[in-house]
Amino acid sequence: MNTITENVDVVVVGAGHAGCEAALACARLGLKTQLFTVSVESIAMMPCNPNIGGTSKGHLVRELDALGGEMGKNIDKTFIQSKMLNQSKGPAVHSLRAQADKAEYSKEMRKVLENTENLTIRQQEVTEILTDEDGKLTGVKTYSGAVYNCKACILCTGTYLRARCIYGDVSTYTGPNGLQAANYLTDSLKAHGIEMRRFKTGTPARIDKRSIDFSKMEEQFGDERVVPFSFTTDPESVQIDQASCWLTYTNEKTHEIIRENLDRSPLYSGMIEGTGPRYCPSIEDKVVRFADKNRHQVFIEPEGLNTNEMYVGGMSSSLPEDVQYAMYRTVAGLEHAVIVRNAYAIEYDCINPKELDSSLEFKKLPGLFSGGQFNGSSGYEEAAAQGLVAGINAAMKVLGREPLILDRSECYIGVLIDDLVTKENREPYRMMTSRAEYRLLLRQDNADLRLTKKGYEVGLISEERYQALLRKEKEIEEEIKRVEHTNIGANEKVQAFLEKHGSTPLKSGTTLGELIRRPELSYEELAEIDENRPELRADVQEQVNIEIKYEGYIQRQKRQVEQFKKLETKKIPKDIDYDDVYSLRLEAKQKLKEYEPTSIGQASRISGVSPADISVLLVYLESHRG
Amino acid sequence: MNTITENVDVVVVGAGHAGCEAALACARLGLKTQLFTVSVESIAMMPCNPNIGGTSKGHLVRELDALGGEMGKNIDKTFIQSKMLNQSKGPAVHSLRAQADKAEYSKEMRKVLENTENLTIRQQEVTEILTDEDGKLTGVKTYSGAVYNCKACILCTGTYLRARCIYGDVSTYTGPNGLQAANYLTDSLKAHGIEMRRFKTGTPARIDKRSIDFSKMEEQFGDERVVPFSFTTDPESVQIDQASCWLTYTNEKTHEIIRENLDRSPLYSGMIEGTGPRYCPSIEDKVVRFADKNRHQVFIEPEGLNTNEMYVGGMSSSLPEDVQYAMYRTVAGLEHAVIVRNAYAIEYDCINPKELDSSLEFKKLPGLFSGGQFNGSSGYEEAAAQGLVAGINAAMKVLGREPLILDRSECYIGVLIDDLVTKENREPYRMMTSRAEYRLLLRQDNADLRLTKKGYEVGLISEERYQALLRKEKEIEEEIKRVEHTNIGANEKVQAFLEKHGSTPLKSGTTLGELIRRPELSYEELAEIDENRPELRADVQEQVNIEIKYEGYIQRQKRQVEQFKKLETKKIPKDIDYDDVYSLRLEAKQKLKEYEPTSIGQASRISGVSPADISVLLVYLESHRG
Repeated sequence: MNTITENVDVVVVGAGHAGCEAALACARLGLKTQLFTVSVESIAMMPCNPNIGGTSKGHLVRELDALGGEMGKNIDKTFIQSKMLNQSKGPAVHSLRAQADKAEYSKEMRKVLENTENLTIRQQEVTEILTDEDGKLTGVKTYSGAVYNCKACILCTGTYLRARCIYGDVSTYTGPNGLQAANYLTDSLKAHGIEMRRFKTGTPARIDKRSIDFSKMEEQFGDERVVPFSFTTDPESVQIDQASCWLTYTNEKTHEIIRENLDRSPLYSGMIEGTGPRYCPSIEDKVVRFADKNRHQVFIEPEGLNTNEMYVGGMSSSLPEDVQYAMYRTVAGLEHAVIVRNAYAIEYDCINPKELDSSLEFKKLPGLFSGGQFNGSSGYEEAAAQGLVAGINAAMKVLGREPLILDRSECYIGVLIDDLVTKENREPYRMMTSRAEYRLLLRQDNADLRLTKKGYEVGLISEERYQALLRKEKEIEEEIKRVEHTNIGANEKVQAFLEKHGSTPLKSGTTLGELIRRPELSYEELAEIDENRPELRADVQEQVNIEIKYEGYIQRQKRQVEQFKKLETKKIPKDIDYDDVYSLRLEAKQKLKEYEPTSIGQASRISGVSPADISVLLVYLESHRG
Repeated sequence: MNTITENVDVVVVGAGHAGCEAALACARLGLKTQLFTVSVESIAMMPCNPNIGGTSKGHLVRELDALGGEMGKNIDKTFIQSKMLNQSKGPAVHSLRAQADKAEYSKEMRKVLENTENLTIRQQEVTEILTDEDGKLTGVKTYSGAVYNCKACILCTGTYLRARCIYGDVSTYTGPNGLQAANYLTDSLKAHGIEMRRFKTGTPARIDKRSIDFSKMEEQFGDERVVPFSFTTDPESVQIDQASCWLTYTNEKTHEIIRENLDRSPLYSGMIEGTGPRYCPSIEDKVVRFADKNRHQVFIEPEGLNTNEMYVGGMSSSLPEDVQYAMYRTVAGLEHAVIVRNAYAIEYDCINPKELDSSLEFKKLPGLFSGGQFNGSSGYEEAAAQGLVAGINAAMKVLGREPLILDRSECYIGVLIDDLVTKENREPYRMMTSRAEYRLLLRQDNADLRLTKKGYEVGLISEERYQALLRKEKEIEEEIKRVEHTNIGANEKVQAFLEKHGSTPLKSGTTLGELIRRPELSYEELAEIDENRPELRADVQEQVNIEIKYEGYIQRQKRQVEQFKKLETKKIPKDIDYDDVYSLRLEAKQKLKEYEPTSIGQASRISGVSPADISVLLVYLESHRG
């Protein structure tokens, strides 16, 4: 044989945000892991927005961190501005978002990968999935003909499969920033019977900072006190000098130019076949869909501290180059904008995620897993979260252990994956808080309490970190108990305190807990009249406050979760013959065969399967038990 | 019109080492300069060796610095080890070489470009050269159809034109590291009658540091006292903690594997059409050409401080992947080498540099200039030097000023360009000290004295820097005078000093100058017996020492240069009709028509033109004067 044959445990294809997490998880779990990328320089590249987190996405990063992922730590090392969003709203929708120094983010992640034991990086294109006669994965083949035998493989190809960048009538068959596309893997997957799709996404122009008039924009600062993403990051280490972002707006003139040139958009001319993300629309999409709005927000964000390139958030586009110049230059402050990189749309091959089960393994191709945009999602955080889960489950499979199945009641990651594998996915999937049914429980602040134990059981959380978590749990529990049992008399000091905070005076004694439940008060403020309060870390105090303040709502959601869990634990046998379920409607039969739900809960979320169908199914399963 | 039309002074195509210098020179000279690159991330990328300088290349960098170029300053900011090579030999061949942190080098150069006034960067491919009816340059067209009208354009496309990476029987039509090739410009140039060539070069594998056994190699340290590249860098700022390199060797086993697999090399199988650099051969070339050598040096060099990738200097190859593994693993310390990136050869289109005149302007296409590998050279330093000269001359043209023509007697850059435009160029041209006739004059230590005045006249050297140079010149002159006129008596102290340095005792009095001329003594050492010595900077002292010590040789070379200059100033009119030069041999006529020399000096260096032909030509010119 004149080609290389290597034996590894796990192969990861692609070193974007999904691939990095997948590879790190496997290597850290002791498996010999081979990571492939088309360019070592593009490891953890951010081809679009220069930030991590945001509404609901911040939740994903914190959950990922609690499970032992890397994204949170990496952004903590390389952020240049940070904000806790939605602070005027309830804690369920507080979300952390940080501006990243893109080059530093990529450099630091590469450093982590390069120094992880069991992990090797190879600049090479993977072109083929190899299987045995039973259709089980045996390895991959590279462009050079080398064979890497492996026990599991995780595909994280992002936007690179048969990638095509487009604006106006101009297109190039490359990935982002002139990087080579991967043109072979699609055919190999199709040959294995995998259903492929063509999605598209887009990015705005990058503009030379020196050409921007910031005096016409509103400066956007970071938080005074920065909260880190990772539960392991020392909060003091993230109190840095922060960079500014800038807010400006499109206007009628902008919209007019866009409308006048819609016929030249590749989206409308039919040149783009792929489906784009509804919740991350291009500016032309917004102008068409929200025709009554006379302006849209535009965020000007630095791409890093060492570059003058500025990202034009909110104005992604695939309009022709001349239209891009014209429209950007209508925006206040961008009158003399010099474009460094064009806005463009990118089309790529991905799968229909119904090909996957909840562990992110291919139903038709055991041993093959996948994560990220390849699964039909959008966003760095969605990608990283799936990458981590796919990595963990590939490792669990190789180690002969049970897969990690996260459900909708315990985390956004569970919602994300469940949505992908059970719901009709017709466009790049984006995480949103509204997708989570139990979002009062799934807060960014308690991701560690929800998931660190699972990360520990998997093997990605150290004993030390786990013990710290147990201590934190105990402290919270004890403090809640103390607060609920601390009586407060209607004395002068207390009444004065209440008056100062615009709170009704006490008629008789009460507990500290009751006072915390008042909307205008909080655990923190009550320190003044809480003489025996122990010294507790800020994160412990925060939990005590939230748990008490929202106790009623939280209890209600916990009951809903119990209901939900009941349905989730009602398993549907793999070999069920839906044709045998006599009174099931035809549409329901088809959908159930298509998605192969593993539980009644999953089945109930498939669109086209009605509550009546679920009842029929329950009766059938009951009668066929044992 | 539905496309962009922009008006700029100068367009630079490509942002490698040549393009960066060209663009900076034009912008700094006040011209509106548009720089195009396929990827902003690849600005000043080092796709091959991680160092700047080396024998004769170090000279180029210092000369470039003296003229106002950037490379010297940039490597001073980003080097991780530095050495003055050949210190055991005479000062003519002392050469500075520094290991670079590749990522930092690229980052810092990008920062400089992004913050240079008049300079804008655009990520876009240039596909067409536009001319008017007279064949004069008017602008360029990009892949998107945008037209950039300009007064001059400098092509610095490096290895990207119709690039193809090859090893074994595997090839991809991309530039280095999976970056998109530029596939259109060649046709446009051909349509303008430009003669294109196909050259190739190669690079070794990059190996994971963690897989190397350094105990089997010899550690290579940097100099104790580092000398900066740039004459403007504070020498104290470069006294850093340096990284190590490592020396190991190939052996008979390595060579056997290579010989056994030669038939699978794309070089020998005919798959590679391009011509490679003779003086930068692949390991398979070395094994074939130097069959009697039983080992070759292999230098293991870090690619940067933030990465584990190590460069395998001396073992570039285009052998198949499996052979690469086998051969690298025979080398002591590389037994378990893990390859991160393959070795490969790269083929690309370039021009026959006889298309250019000495200002690096195209003879057939006024306004079009070029530099770097596109001109048929190899090496970052050769590229940067040409880029700077092409940039300066493009600017001079736009500003209506005289071009900067550097001749062979004043600098290596002059030798480089003269060789390119007058000598048959059949392979990538590499600078070597042996190519310079007057190398005792063209030392790296006196590049500032030779060229800063020219840089100042061009406008790239500040008044302050120029005044500092004049002061330095004066200090050297005065000190030489003082030393030559300082009498030394044969007293006890002097005799003891001479004895200590193994130098013959004095019979009678002499001068300090005479003592400096003794091989075993130097200006520095003589401080001990030189009571009235003024305090002078180290670089001034160095010049005094060399000027006195090598006075005889230097004077002789200066006389040779005078002879040379005489021939260089004998201009050949542009409209000369060689057919009219009656007794000129046919071959000489053909060559002279082909290369169109502008002086008798140039004509004399064209291969195929004999001294007798030159005499005939001189007689002819004399008789047709006026």
